[in-house]
Formats: sequence, C-alpha cells, structure tokens
Amino acid sequence: MQKNPHKKARKIMNRKERLKKVGLPPGSLIYTGESKDQQPIITVFDYDVNLVREEALSPNLVHTLSIPKNGTRWVNVYGVHDVELIQKIGAAFHLHPLVMEDIVNTSNRPKDDVFAHQLFILAQFFNYNANEMDVTQSQVSIVLGKHYVLTFQEHKSGAFESVRKQLRAEGSHIRSQGADYLAYALLDSIVDRYFLVLDQLSDDCERMEDVLLTKPTTQTLNQIYHLKGESMELRRSVWPLREVINHLVRNENQFFSESTVFYLRDVYDHTVHFIESLEGIRDMLASMLDIYLSTLSNRVNMEVRALTVVAMLFMPATLIAGIFGMNTKWLPWQNNTDGFWYVISIMLGIALVMGLIFWRRQWLNKSSISED
Amino acid sequence: MQKNPHKKARKIMNRKERLKKVGLPPGSLIYTGESKDQQPIITVFDYDVNLVREEALSPNLVHTLSIPKNGTRWVNVYGVHDVELIQKIGAAFHLHPLVMEDIVNTSNRPKDDVFAHQLFILAQFFNYNANEMDVTQSQVSIVLGKHYVLTFQEHKSGAFESVRKQLRAEGSHIRSQGADYLAYALLDSIVDRYFLVLDQLSDDCERMEDVLLTKPTTQTLNQIYHLKGESMELRRSVWPLREVINHLVRNENQFFSESTVFYLRDVYDHTVHFIESLEGIRDMLASMLDIYLSTLSNRVNMEVRALTVVAMLFMPATLIAGIFGMNTKWLPWQNNTDGFWYVISIMLGIALVMGLIFWRRQWLNKSSISED
Amino acid sequence: MQKNPHKKARKIMNRKERLKKVGLPPGSLIYTGESKDQQPIITVFDYDVNLVREEALSPNLVHTLSIPKNGTRWVNVYGVHDVELIQKIGAAFHLHPLVMEDIVNTSNRPKDDVFAHQLFILAQFFNYNANEMDVTQSQVSIVLGKHYVLTFQEHKSGAFESVRKQLRAEGSHIRSQGADYLAYALLDSIVDRYFLVLDQLSDDCERMEDVLLTKPTTQTLNQIYHLKGESMELRRSVWPLREVINHLVRNENQFFSESTVFYLRDVYDHTVHFIESLEGIRDMLASMLDIYLSTLSNRVNMEVRALTVVAMLFMPATLIAGIFGMNTKWLPWQNNTDGFWYVISIMLGIALVMGLIFWRRQWLNKSSISED
Amino acid sequence: MQKNPHKKARKIMNRKERLKKVGLPPGSLIYTGESKDQQPIITVFDYDVNLVREEALSPNLVHTLSIPKNGTRWVNVYGVHDVELIQKIGAAFHLHPLVMEDIVNTSNRPKDDVFAHQLFILAQFFNYNANEMDVTQSQVSIVLGKHYVLTFQEHKSGAFESVRKQLRAEGSHIRSQGADYLAYALLDSIVDRYFLVLDQLSDDCERMEDVLLTKPTTQTLNQIYHLKGESMELRRSVWPLREVINHLVRNENQFFSESTVFYLRDVYDHTVHFIESLEGIRDMLASMLDIYLSTLSNRVNMEVRALTVVAMLFMPATLIAGIFGMNTKWLPWQNNTDGFWYVISIMLGIALVMGLIFWRRQWLNKSSISED
Amino acid sequence: MQKNPHKKARKIMNRKERLKKVGLPPGSLIYTGESKDQQPIITVFDYDVNLVREEALSPNLVHTLSIPKNGTRWVNVYGVHDVELIQKIGAAFHLHPLVMEDIVNTSNRPKDDVFAHQLFILAQFFNYNANEMDVTQSQVSIVLGKHYVLTFQEHKSGAFESVRKQLRAEGSHIRSQGADYLAYALLDSIVDRYFLVLDQLSDDCERMEDVLLTKPTTQTLNQIYHLKGESMELRRSVWPLREVINHLVRNENQFFSESTVFYLRDVYDHTVHFIESLEGIRDMLASMLDIYLSTLSNRVNMEVRALTVVAMLFMPATLIAGIFGMNTKWLPWQNNTDGFWYVISIMLGIALVMGLIFWRRQWLNKSSISED
Repeated sequence: MQKNPHKKARKIMNRKERLKKVGLPPGSLIYTGESKDQQPIITVFDYDVNLVREEALSPNLVHTLSIPKNGTRWVNVYGVHDVELIQKIGAAFHLHPLVMEDIVNTSNRPKDDVFAHQLFILAQFFNYNANEMDVTQSQVSIVLGKHYVLTFQEHKSGAFESVRKQLRAEGSHIRSQGADYLAYALLDSIVDRYFLVLDQLSDDCERMEDVLLTKPTTQTLNQIYHLKGESMELRRSVWPLREVINHLVRNENQFFSESTVFYLRDVYDHTVHFIESLEGIRDMLASMLDIYLSTLSNRVNMEVRALTVVAMLFMPATLIAGIFGMNTKWLPWQNNTDGFWYVISIMLGIALVMGLIFWRRQWLNKSSISED
Repeated sequence: MQKNPHKKARKIMNRKERLKKVGLPPGSLIYTGESKDQQPIITVFDYDVNLVREEALSPNLVHTLSIPKNGTRWVNVYGVHDVELIQKIGAAFHLHPLVMEDIVNTSNRPKDDVFAHQLFILAQFFNYNANEMDVTQSQVSIVLGKHYVLTFQEHKSGAFESVRKQLRAEGSHIRSQGADYLAYALLDSIVDRYFLVLDQLSDDCERMEDVLLTKPTTQTLNQIYHLKGESMELRRSVWPLREVINHLVRNENQFFSESTVFYLRDVYDHTVHFIESLEGIRDMLASMLDIYLSTLSNRVNMEVRALTVVAMLFMPATLIAGIFGMNTKWLPWQNNTDGFWYVISIMLGIALVMGLIFWRRQWLNKSSISED
Repeated sequence: MQKNPHKKARKIMNRKERLKKVGLPPGSLIYTGESKDQQPIITVFDYDVNLVREEALSPNLVHTLSIPKNGTRWVNVYGVHDVELIQKIGAAFHLHPLVMEDIVNTSNRPKDDVFAHQLFILAQFFNYNANEMDVTQSQVSIVLGKHYVLTFQEHKSGAFESVRKQLRAEGSHIRSQGADYLAYALLDSIVDRYFLVLDQLSDDCERMEDVLLTKPTTQTLNQIYHLKGESMELRRSVWPLREVINHLVRNENQFFSESTVFYLRDVYDHTVHFIESLEGIRDMLASMLDIYLSTLSNRVNMEVRALTVVAMLFMPATLIAGIFGMNTKWLPWQNNTDGFWYVISIMLGIALVMGLIFWRRQWLNKSSISED
Repeated sequence: MQKNPHKKARKIMNRKERLKKVGLPPGSLIYTGESKDQQPIITVFDYDVNLVREEALSPNLVHTLSIPKNGTRWVNVYGVHDVELIQKIGAAFHLHPLVMEDIVNTSNRPKDDVFAHQLFILAQFFNYNANEMDVTQSQVSIVLGKHYVLTFQEHKSGAFESVRKQLRAEGSHIRSQGADYLAYALLDSIVDRYFLVLDQLSDDCERMEDVLLTKPTTQTLNQIYHLKGESMELRRSVWPLREVINHLVRNENQFFSESTVFYLRDVYDHTVHFIESLEGIRDMLASMLDIYLSTLSNRVNMEVRALTVVAMLFMPATLIAGIFGMNTKWLPWQNNTDGFWYVISIMLGIALVMGLIFWRRQWLNKSSISED
Repeated sequence: MQKNPHKKARKIMNRKERLKKVGLPPGSLIYTGESKDQQPIITVFDYDVNLVREEALSPNLVHTLSIPKNGTRWVNVYGVHDVELIQKIGAAFHLHPLVMEDIVNTSNRPKDDVFAHQLFILAQFFNYNANEMDVTQSQVSIVLGKHYVLTFQEHKSGAFESVRKQLRAEGSHIRSQGADYLAYALLDSIVDRYFLVLDQLSDDCERMEDVLLTKPTTQTLNQIYHLKGESMELRRSVWPLREVINHLVRNENQFFSESTVFYLRDVYDHTVHFIESLEGIRDMLASMLDIYLSTLSNRVNMEVRALTVVAMLFMPATLIAGIFGMNTKWLPWQNNTDGFWYVISIMLGIALVMGLIFWRRQWLNKSSISED
C-alpha cells in the first residue's frame, strides 16, 4: 500500500507528461504517455445495411485512407505513441492540430470539441487492479464525421468488441444506422465498462467491511482511505464526461439524428447512475471509517475502565497489607495465629463488595456502552 | 445487522443485474431482477364517464390489446420478468425499444422520456422492513398515451387499489377526466406511499432515541448509522423523481391538460415535503450521533476522574503504611500500644480532608460537567 | 428535555395527520390537525375609503357570503377543523378543491398557487414556548381575489390585530388601497411576528451562553443541541416562504399593483433578514458547542495531569518507605534514632525538588494550556 | 471577552430596535438606533465644473431645500434619530415612505431600491475596536436623483472627507461629472474603508498566531473563536452589498452613465476582493484552531507517556523493596551487611535497562511524534 | 516555518499596498508593490508573416511608441513601479485611467475589462519556493488592441520566452496570425507555467507523505497544514482566471477571431484541469492529515494499553509482597527456609498466567487494532 500514494499523485496530474509540453507552441504533437515499442494496430470497418468489410491496415498504408462518400467507415487505432501515424491520419481526415494534440496527449480530461464538419469526443477507460485496489485509466478519442468515425485508444482494451459483433451481424440495427449511431454505440460500450469497475470496487468495499467487523487492522484503515481516494478520483474523472454527454444530448450542432439522441440520453442516464452509485460507495466508506473509529474509541474506553477496575480492586488490599506490615507496638490479632487469615479474609471481602458494586453499575462489562 | 451492509451495497448499484447487460446491443430485453416463476398478472380497465369495464387478461391474449380510439384504457402488469410478454405489449402500444429495456431492467433511477405520442415515466415504490430497518425498492413504469395508460410493476404492491376504487365509483371525478388525470392519480398514490415509509423510519428513529437516552449500546450506534444510510439512500432515490415531476409540471410537451397540471403541482409539493422531512430525519440522526458520542466521552471522563480520585485517596494512606513499616531504629509511637490507632486515624483524617476538598471542587460528582 | 425529541419527530412530518390522507382521492377534505370542539370564529370586514363594517358571522350563515363587486371584503376564519364550513366558504368564493384541501390539511409547507381569478398563499405562524425552548407552528392560508381576501387560521393568534386597528382608523393608508394591499399587510404582520420568536430564541441562546461560561452541565449541552435543532427547523420552514414572497414580488400574474409590490419587496427583505439572523444564531450555537467541547477536553486534560503529578510526587516516597522497610541485615541509619527523620527529610526533599521542577515547567497550573 | 457574546447576539438582529416596529403600519418612521441628544448636522454641497458652494444648514431651514435644475447638489446628514427632520427632507426630495423608514431604521441589510426618479442605496460602515477585537457597524443611506445625492449617516465617520477634498479641488475629475459619479465616489470611499477594518482584523490574527506559537492559553482559543465569529459576521454583512453593486453595474435603470459604470465595476471588484480576503482570514483562523487543538492533544499525549514511563520505572523498584520487606524465614543476602546495597544496585540496574529500552524506542522524547 | 504565517497574511490582502490608496481619487497611479531601483526594461516586437523586428526601447523614448496601422506590435514592460513610464505608454495607446491604475497596483485578482477598442486582461504568475514551500505571485497585465498587444510584468520571469522563439521562427503559425493569437499564446504560456508550480507542490506532497509514513514529527503536521493553505491560496487565485478565460471564450465582444477562440478553449480546459488537480492535491493532503491523526491516536492507544498491562502485571506481585511483609503472628511457610522461593514462584506464576490471558486476548500486540 505504501507505494500507492505516489501512483495517486501521478494520476492527479500526469505531471511528467504534461511538463514535456510546457513552452512548446500549441498544436505540437508530443506523445505524453509512457514510451512504447509495439507497433500501433489499425483496423478499418466499412459497412452499410447490405455489406460489411473489415480489414487490418498496415501503418505504412495509412495515407491511402480517405473520407468515404457513403456508407460508414470506422477506423480504430490502438496505440497513440506513433506521432507520425496520427499526423497522417489527421491529414487524411482533416483533423484540427489541437485535436491531434489531444489524441496524442494522454492526460486530458473528458471533453467534446465541435468543428465545422467534425465532432471530437475524448473519454477515459477505467481498469480496476484488484490486487492493489487501484483504478488506472487510459484515454480514448472519438472523431465523428458525416460518414466516418475514428477511434484512438491508448491500449488495446477489447471494450469495442461488442460493437464489432453487432456490425458483423447481418441485419443488426447498427448496420441500418449512420456514423452517429456508431459513435453512440462506442460511447455506450465505454460507459458500460465503468460498471465493471464499479462492481469490483463495490466488492472490495464489502470485503473491507467484513474485515472491519471481524478483525480490523490499521492496514484496513489505510485500505479504506485508499478506496475512498480511488472513488473520489473516479468521480472527478467521470463528472466531466457527464457534461460532455449532456452537451451531445442537447445536440445543438446536429451531429446526431433525432433517433440517436434518444439513445444518447440513455448513455447520459447511465453516467448519472454511475456517479450516484459512486456517491453511495463514498457514503458507505465514510460510514465504515466512522464505525472503525468508534470501535477504536470503544476499545480504548474498555481498557481505561479495565485499568480503573484493576486499580480499585488492588488498592485497598495493598493498603491493608501495608498497614499490617507496620512496625507499631500493637497490631490487631497480634497474638492470634489466625490473624493472617483474618486479614486475607478482609482483603477478599472488600474485593468482593467492590466487585458487586461494579457489577451492579455494569462496570464489569467490556465497555461502558455495552455490546449486545 | 451484520448482514445489512451487503444488501446496501447491492442496492447501491444492482450490480449483478446491471452486468448482465454489459456488451449487449442497446434495446436488448434482458430481465435484470431476481428470476421468478409466477405468471405475470394483467388487468385492463376501460372507462369513460358513463361506464367502466374491468377484466383480467391472460398473458396469451395480450396480442388482442390495442390503442383505443376514445375513453381511457389502463393496462396494469404485475411482474416484468416475462420478456416476451413485454415485447407483445410493446408491439401493441408502439413502445420504443429503449422503453421496453427500461421496463424490464429493474435497476433504473426515476426518469421521464418524452416521445412523439407517448410519455414514459419510471419511478420506485419503497417498502420498509421494520425488522431489519431496511428500505427495499421495486420499480414501477408508467406509459401515458392519448387514450391509454400502461403500468408495469415488479411486484404486486396494492398501491394502486385506491385508484381502482375511484374508477369503480359511479360519478367520481377521475371518471370524467382523461388518461392524463389517471397518470396523475397513479403518481399521487406512489408518492403517498412514501409517507408510509417515512412514518416507519421516523418511528424507528424515535425508538432509537429512547434507547439512546436510557441504555445505549454499540448496537444502537450501528443502528443509527444504518438508519442514516437508509435515509440517504432514500433521498438519493427520490431526488431524481422530484426532477421528473418538476419536468411534468412544466409540461412542455402538452401531455397533461391545464387542470391536471394543477394537481401535478400538488404531487410535486408532496415530493419536496418528503425530501425536506428526510432532511429533518437526517438532522435528527446526526444530532443523535452527537449525543451518543458526547455521552460516551462524558463517561470516559467520569471514569478517568474516578481513577484519579481513588488513586489520590489511597496513595497517602499507602505511603503512611509504608513509612510505619520501615525498620528504622525509632518510629513514632514506637512504644505506645495505641500507636496503631493513631496511624489509622491519621490515614482516615487525610482521606477525610481530601474528600472534603474533592467535594468542594465538585469532583465527587459523577462527571466534571455535572448531570442534572 | 427528554420529551422533546418526540415532539420534534412529530413536527418533522406531521405524520399521523398526513397518513389520514393516504389512499384518498385528491381534493378530499380531511382535517389533519388535532381534533377540536370549539366552534370556528368567522369575522367579516367590508371597507373602502369612506366606511368600514366589521361583523362576526355565525358559521350557519356562511352561505350568505358572496364576492363583493366593489370595496374590499376580508373574511377571517379561526379554526379549520370544520370541514363543512370550509366547503361552504369554498363554494361561495369558488375555491379550487386542492385549495380547500390545503386549508384543512395543516401540515403543508409555505407555497403559493396561482389561479385564474385567485391567488392562494399558505404560510406558518411560529410561537416560542420559552419553558420548553420549543418552536410550535400553526398554519395560515390567505386567498386573494379582486375584491376580497380570505384568511384561515388554525388557532386564534392575535397576529392580525394590528391590521384590524389600521382598518378601523379613519383615513389610514390601508383604507385607500385595494385587497392586494390588505394581503400585503397580513403577510407583513405574519413576518413581523417571526422576529418575536427570533428575539426569544436569541435570549435563550444568550442565557445558555452565560450558563456555559459559569457552570456548564450535560443539560446545557442537550439544550444547545435542542436550540440548534429548533433553529434548523425554523430555517427549513421559512426558506420556502422566502421563495413564495419572491414569487409574489416578481408578480407575473398581476395580482398586486405596482405600488404594493414595492411594499412586498420590504417583506421579502425582512424574510431574508430573518433567515440570515437565524444563520447567525446557528453560528453562535455551533461556536458554543465548540467552546463546550474545548472546555470539557481541557478539564480532562487538567485531571489527567493531576493524576500524573500526584503519582509522581508519591511514587518516590512510597519506594523509599518500601526500601527502609526491607528486612536486609543492614539499613542506613540502622542504629541512629534520628534515622526516621532523616528518611522523612529525604522524602520531603525529593517532593520539594519535583514540585519545583513541575512549577518551573508550569505543570502546577490547572491545565497545560494555562487560563488567564 | 465574556461580554462579547451578548454584543454579538445584539448585532445579529438588532432585536430591541426591530421590535419597536412590530405591529405598526408600514412606512411608520420610528428611529430604531440608540437614542441621542446631539443635533443632526446637515451640510450641502452645490457644484458644477466651474464653481462649488459648501454650507452647513440649520435643521430648521431644511424645508428650504429643493431639487436643483442643473449642477449637482449633495446633502449630507449626520444623525438619523430626528424623525421630523428626515420627514422634511423626504418631502423636499419626494422620498418614498419606505425609503424614509429604511433611513431611520438602522438595522437593515445592504440593499438597493429603484424608483421612477430615484435610486436608493443602503450600505454599512464598519469600525474595528482593537481593544475588544470587535467590529461595529453604522448605517449609511444614499439617494441618487438626476441632479442630487442625499446621504444619511448614523454617526459622523469622516469617511467622505476624501470626496469633499476632491470636490473642493479646482478642475478635479469629479467636478466635471454628474451626480451619478458622486454616488460612485461615495460608494468607493465606503468600500475603501472596509480594507482598514480588514487590515486591523488581519493584524490581530497575526498577533494571535504569534501568541499561539509561543504561549497559548484558553484565552487565545476564545479570542480565535471570537475573531472567527467577527469575520463571519462581516462576511454576512458585505455579501448583500456585493449583490447591490452587481445590480448597479448591470445598470438596468440607467441611473449611471456608461463611463461611471466602468468605475462602479472597480468598486465591485474591490468588494469581491474584500470577501475573498475575509475567506482567506477565515481559512487562517480555522488552521490556527487546528494547530491549537493538535498542540493540545500532543501535550496530553506527552503527559500520558510521562505517567507511563514514571510508573514503569518505579514499579519494579517498589516490588523489589516489597519483596525484601517480606517476613519470610529466609531472604537473599539475609546475613550479608552489603545486602542493602546489592538490592539498591538491582533496582538501579533495572531502572537503567528500562531507561535504555525507552531511549531506543524514543519514548524519552517529549512526545511520541517528536518535535524538531 | 514560523515566519510563514505572516507572509501568508500579507499575501491574503496585500494590505500595506492597498492602504496607500485609501482616500485617493480613482485612477490615481500609485505603485503598490515593493519599491524598486532597477530601471524598467521595455522590448518591442513588430511582426507580420514576412518580417519580424525586435528591439529594446529606452524608457526615455517611450513617447515615440504608437498604435501601428498593420502587422502586430508587442510591447513588453518589465517592472511597473515607474508610474510616469506607465502613464506615457498609457497616453500612446489610449489606456483608460482605471487600466493604468490596475497595472500599477499589484494586488489585483485576475479580471478582464472590455473597452471600445481594447481588451484588458489581468492575471498572475506563480512561483514555488521549494525551500519554504511557499507560493509567491507576481502580476501580469495584457492589453489587446487591433494591431497591438501590451504586456506589463512585475518581475522578469522568462515565461514569455517560448512565445518570442515562435515569433522569431520563420514561417511559424503565430507569425501568420493577428494580435489576438499573440494574446492567446501569452495566456497559454502563463497557464502552462502553473503546471510547473503544481508539479513542485505535488512533489513536496509526496515527500511529506514519505516522511509521514516513516518518521512523522509535529513539524510534518505544520508543513501539511502549510501546503494545504498554499493550495487553497492558489485555488483562490486561479478560480477568477477561469472565469476570465471563460468570458474570453464566449467572446461577446469579438476581440478574438473564430479560429483563435478554438485555441482559447484549450487554455480554458487547462485552467479547469489545473483547478481539478489542485482539488486532488487538497484531497491528498486532507487524507494525509487523517492518517497522521489516526497514527497518533493509535500510538496513544498503544501506550495506554502498555500502562494497563504493566500495572496489571505488577499489582498482584506487589500485593503479595505486601502480604508477606505483614507482621501477623503467623505467615505461610513461616518456618520454611524455602518460603521466599515459594512466594517468588507464586508471583511469577500469576504473572505468567496473566501474560497468557493477555496474549490470548491479543493485548500484547502493540495496539488493540493490530498492525500487519
């Protein structure tokens, strides 16, 4: 767990990446993610109601891509570290320099930019690393044009596989719709993914809660704080996406058809639902912290009382022993061989009476506020 | 109580259900509630000012349903797990695929969707399980068209019985009104139900308060936290309904007549009243937590003081006993047979003087901040 | 004080009353207040610039009331439990069923409803019970028409007496104005009343503060919590009234003349002033709680230190006594008859030195953080 | 300090004053400040670009005042307790009854009222009493007409002296401008004054901080709470002024010329700056409270540890002394005259070993969390 | 660290500077920064697509400056303490008196003022002093006209160097754009700078976190509080800049071309990103405080338990020693020479049994809530 805070700090601002760009003119294409050696993977889908063509494109042949006149073309790119490649695609599809910058710079917050003939949407995938209870994010950019959709992913995630399946299916609804519906379907699959993360996060919260009620450790406390941090991090990342989708639903620039906007509202509802669920998890974690701290304070209470009771039981006996140890000329039962037992009896008697008083005042319970 | 958190977590997101849908194309009808064997129950009301006809419809005959030309038809369905049935009704009343999806998916938040000829409203019933102090929710969907209202309930709740009574009554106001008034009446009976839950929640709060003032246990603390969680859960669920009804009151799509909007404003006021009452319960619970904690800290205070006082009363006596136990050549009253009693008198005298001092400083009260 | 929480809970939602209505058709007139035997009192004022006629009307003659053609008629009703009476008045002045329902149902929040020829305003009177430090509320409904104002009060409050005096005075400003100014004057006297409650609440806060600084008890703590609860309750009740008056000031429905709106703005300012003053009282109470808790923690601190100091002063002496009580063959000053006094001198010497050290470290002050 | 809370409560609502008015018809002129004997002071400035005339006017000659046709007339009144005087001025300048009421009633919050030919602005002066760390406020009313400005001050404050100097100066910018610029200049000098209070408040905060770091007392704690209360009080009073000036800047009623609005925006910026600075002071005070409490809890920690260490060092020695004080037949070194020293050596040895252990575990530091 | 609070207070309001202006007519040019001796440095850039001319201008020749008819002129001034110089430049470029006042007064919050032919933007540079963990700020003013941009900086910062490089580069994008793009580029470089401060702040937070987990001191606590204060200070300063840039993006006054607004939105996104990152740092610091306090309370817990355990282990042994030290006629093993060892064995036996009980109850762990 000790390592996590650093990760967190890095996530907060993606500093190192961001700093690469300070002092450069706007529109400079500098890949700000971790450097990679794998070659980017490019897949192209061309489809309309009647046919679908799916092919993998070599990065060298990217310049052959063009904006189609009809049907829908979906170009998906895994890996955005090859700046030249992005520039070639950008040239083919007339991307604005700032859009290319945003695609390559992997430390953006969700946003949408409206251009004359294009809509640019930037969102985040989330992955939950169950071992470290860590949420990692990777960026996905969507460009929507009249007859094409471009998607750029930082890593291969498999999130769009369900969309591909629908495209390949003969007679599926998506095939009869335009590029705007494809863009919706992609956004939908992104947001659907969030619920997987939420599920895992929620599972870990429950597990923490079980641990908390059975044998809490300071480790538990740290993990609760960590999960709380992750859920706030997640909320901070999804909140702007809510704004983005809300913006798309208002659809002031007519990139989406009336019927697709209907579906977009569904995605919006899911996003709101996600944020509210996160809010619920945050409440749950806050309440777990409260229970932890009240359990802790209750234990301290119990121990202070134990000290009190023990001290009170021993003090009179110790005093009596001291008294009978005095070297005064006369002591009670001085000449009685049973005197020792009399004294011991007095000690036990006092201890018993005190025990009774404590018992009636319910001080012998583990804690002043008794546990049932 | 230990079992509750899990339920809570499940309620937060209805995960399992939600996950069934990840990766499916939108509009896929997948029932996301708990699987059921009972057959759905369908009742149909056809009425106008003059006559009312009420019949139970076999699920097999659902295809015979149609949109009426005049009068008002109310189709109520208990049980939404029969996906085929919902599809047949959907076909008969031209429901949008997303509406059917929302009806079947029982983990939605309240919302309203406006279509060309239909208004779709989704809300929640609440039930309060007094034994476990648990709020459970079940979904209800309302579709309002020109001459018909469709309602889909997850469980048989009996909440609409009062509306049925009004419909059966000759000359009742509802009979002279259209489908929009029926939709209002149904919403009104849903919101009225909330106050039953509020009543029980409030009763339990008071009961907790009594326990808190008489004999608080850590169990009490957990229950207060639990009730606080439930009231926040409830608030989170009702808040979007407030937005929905506010939207209906603004009535931009003219689904409601002017006079019915008046009644809707009443429902809106009730919803706001409900939320404010919940807020009041939350304040009350927060104040109960404060009192619990201050009581607790007061007791610790009392016990620390007890230790102090006991220690202070015994320490001088123990020291004196020790002094007279010393084996020095000479001791006071060495040769006086009453020496023992002299020493005991000194011990008692010191204890008395200290007791007086403590009494005047009000240290013998149970707590430094005295309880009256 | 132990009884108050129940009252509070009851105030939160007026449950019992509210529940009487669950399952009834809207517009059902069910009195939801406490049942009463007294007969309602009805007074009628008819006035214009020249003359004023004031009469008490028997409930039996209510059907003789009608909407006047000119001048202004003010009908005031004390007691809203006689449902029939309200219905008769409602018939005479064409009140909407929902308005009559709101008049009779005494658990509403402040609101205003705009009808074609009428404006309905619902507000609350507050009374402060100084003995129990309790704020009770009673509902007042105002109906404003072209030439008439109807007021319905739950209890006789005497709040409108000042308005009556103005009406009776020859040549008073109010006589030269229409019904809208009368409605304003009534609202003004309602809001003026709030400051009486604020005054008493504020007095009790000051009294609490005096007690807090001189001899705080846990009772004081409970009372501060109680006052805090009452002020939040009050705030929650007045906040919607602010919205209502703001709505009237915007005067989109022209029920008020331009000049009267000016006066209404004054009432609005008073309401805002009232809410801000409540906010100030809340701050004051919060700060009192802080001072209480810091005083408490300071006392615990003082006592723990006392224990430390006492323990440290006695421990060396007790050890020395123990050492000189050892039965070793040789002890210092074994054969010196002054040995006893030497030992006692050593004990006192050590105690003195320790006392000096404590004094220089300022540990003999009552608390580590010294009080000046 | 004990006296302050009362003052604070009085400031919260200016109760006594406010109550004088309950039950009176609106527009009743009742002076609600403290009663005064001094005669009001009236000064009149008449000026245009070319000439300026300044004269003191006897209250008896107030009826000779009139609205000028050209140039600008500024009438300033110190003391608003002479109700008749205000009425005479009100008659001369056609003031609305509510405006006169507001001028005389000195417990208003900042506001602006727009009339057909007049703009009424009500603001507050603040004074900081350094001895009691108390912020007192006095009301100032400004009436702006076409060719005149009226100002009414509760007390002589000298705040407008700088404006007078500018007016007297030949060729100053203010002389070439109209009454609207004069009103701006007066507002500017009022807001400028706020920074003097802020300065003193900030100085006292710093002084408190020094005391806190060197020798904190509970007195310090009370003073920090007091300063926090004063800054919140101040914020609550200035916040509505921000709204007032924002309203003037929007200038929907054209009382200010385009160029003067520019200057007004400057005053608005200052007001916002003031509020933000107050926010900063509040943060600083909150952080001081945190430091105070953490210092306190650290000291308790230190003392509890001291008790632990002392108890642990003495307990073994006391036990050993007890053991060698036993009257068993045989004791170690029973017949050795050096036995005493052997025992003492054992005691010291154990104390040394324990001291070493404590030292290595860093328990001999003043606190578990060491101070550097 | 002890010195920092003073600095902080000074930063809060730049009092001394602000006070110099109280009582002066608006538009008075009074330099409110620290007095300086260095001469201001003036550089002038004249450029269009084809050529760029860069020259340093002597302050004496400032009057030769004029508004160019075409191309773009950028005048940059380091040092704003020379009031006369600012006045000369103001005369040359027709600056409003309030603008000149704002340039010279270095205690403003970010703002934008729109004039007929000019746009005035005021922002802040931030520097992070790593030694004192202190954020200092210096003001920068930007005036944008048709063919010119003026920038005034309090100190030489080097922040605009990247813009100069772009200007000097043949064929750079910036050379082909107008003055509005230059203003954007300057704002962009200002905001880019913020991320350097964020980076250092974030680094220090991480460093603090490492210290916190290894060896926390009260110094650490103070530093965390200090960093929290700095980040709040920063947030308070940047928040209004967000509003300013948002205002520019809405571009109601057409100072920016459509294409430049696109770039401005990018700056806006960066500002929002910066504020959100600060929010994240604030969360991180708050969580660090929580961990610090829970660590601390855990340690107190551990020590109180240690006292309990030690006391419990010694008390029975001490009592037994006391009992065998009694001078009663008969004692167990009175005549047995092994009696001493029997007693010692009993003592050890009891200690062992208690140790076992403590071990099974897990009381021998360092803390009740065990650390793994």
